[in-house]
Amino acid sequence: MTDSLQRLAIGLEYDGSGFRGWQIQREARTLQAQVQKALSRVADEPVEVTCAGRTDAGVHATGQVIHFDTRAVRPPRAWLLGGNSHLSPELSFHWVRPVPGDFHARFSARWRRYRYIILCRTTRPAILRRRVTWTHRPLDAGVMDRAARLLLGEHDFTSFRARGCQARTPVRTVEEIGVHRSGDFIHLDIRANAFLHHMVRNIAGVLMAIGRGEREVEWVQELLRVRDRDQAGVTAPPDGLYLVQVGYDPRFDLQPPAILPTYG
Amino acid sequence: MTDSLQRLAIGLEYDGSGFRGWQIQREARTLQAQVQKALSRVADEPVEVTCAGRTDAGVHATGQVIHFDTRAVRPPRAWLLGGNSHLSPELSFHWVRPVPGDFHARFSARWRRYRYIILCRTTRPAILRRRVTWTHRPLDAGVMDRAARLLLGEHDFTSFRARGCQARTPVRTVEEIGVHRSGDFIHLDIRANAFLHHMVRNIAGVLMAIGRGEREVEWVQELLRVRDRDQAGVTAPPDGLYLVQVGYDPRFDLQPPAILPTYG
Repeated sequence: MTDSLQRLAIGLEYDGSGFRGWQIQREARTLQAQVQKALSRVADEPVEVTCAGRTDAGVHATGQVIHFDTRAVRPPRAWLLGGNSHLSPELSFHWVRPVPGDFHARFSARWRRYRYIILCRTTRPAILRRRVTWTHRPLDAGVMDRAARLLLGEHDFTSFRARGCQARTPVRTVEEIGVHRSGDFIHLDIRANAFLHHMVRNIAGVLMAIGRGEREVEWVQELLRVRDRDQAGVTAPPDGLYLVQVGYDPRFDLQPPAILPTYG
Repeated sequence: MTDSLQRLAIGLEYDGSGFRGWQIQREARTLQAQVQKALSRVADEPVEVTCAGRTDAGVHATGQVIHFDTRAVRPPRAWLLGGNSHLSPELSFHWVRPVPGDFHARFSARWRRYRYIILCRTTRPAILRRRVTWTHRPLDAGVMDRAARLLLGEHDFTSFRARGCQARTPVRTVEEIGVHRSGDFIHLDIRANAFLHHMVRNIAGVLMAIGRGEREVEWVQELLRVRDRDQAGVTAPPDGLYLVQVGYDPRFDLQPPAILPTYG
């Protein structure tokens, strides 16, 4: 122990299928509670963590980032391996780094990258259940890709925002987006400065309707224009959604890699 | 119902991590029990199934094949979708085909193909836990591949056979074998006319010791020669093992595809 607080950042992976999301809640199994419990054991004092992106129930991460402050002095390896030994097998810490006191996992993030994975096959997956979104209906990935690209740039994403979303503004900038097929799997990759609540799943729901041929590519433009969640159809399931990378202000010299889950 | 028995073959996938293996046992959760229960519901009569390869506890399959006889008359789609609706989410039927009465899932098989997946990384997997074998120690896939190729052809595999193995002869023919790396993952692919109990996991254990540099490539030849299980080291865990394809006598015109699980 020392008197001075140190701030640490951790990169972690989790299978979100058995959790009620990231954020700690009374009487619910949450990822944050698991992480805090494991780190508190290593620190031998209570630890509170802040994450880059608060994922919803059932959503996964390969590249979540958290920060926390502690008086406990441990080598990074002790946080990493000690932390993992106290975590449920559904979570794993991949790296630990000391960061300046003004680093903030959420507010220092310049962008987030998500991957949404759809399995397109007659019969449901067993080994990848709850790790991909399954549909037995054929999807045209080329058409989905054309539609997705209409979301590039700064837009008002009201039509793609959950009704309960707390963000002050519905304007977000999509910096990269693309849909590509790999065998029976379709990947939607999207990077934006920030995301509204359910934004990726609502985009996935719209793109899937377009991929099935129920809607035209131009529907995306119409939805951006009308700013009406009721017109944008269903929210795609959380199963196929992964937070894969968070990009930080370069002055923190923290460049977590994109860890893109890929199944075949 | 009709008076005549029909024989059907089914291709299925399963996550074996929650089961005590394929074969039905009293008071143990087994894959065979799940499959028989689901098919009996569809048939509305008791169904008994026979599989191509009786996988052990924790072992997975993407291309398991079973056959069964029934008096129930249902279209293939009803067996497939009805069966899946009664199966645990850890299993999924992928195809159903009527086959001649002399087809036998096990005895008509000419060969089986397995894939063994090792994840080589400092920290343990969360999303792929129990779906891959994790090691934090570096492995040289090139050296493992050279060692694996020494197993090609007909050999006495006594050194690679579980002590309790019931097979009449320890001689098997390895028709294809190879080890290759893909990012942090190492794949051992092996096709043989048939396999002894624990044969793939014992081969994987030997190749991992060679890949870590603890043993020379030539150890494989020595193990084949000495025919002594005690000298061949540890059995690798079931987590990374998948039965991926079964090849049948061409007269059955049944060519299930290789469904190679690939993670990235």
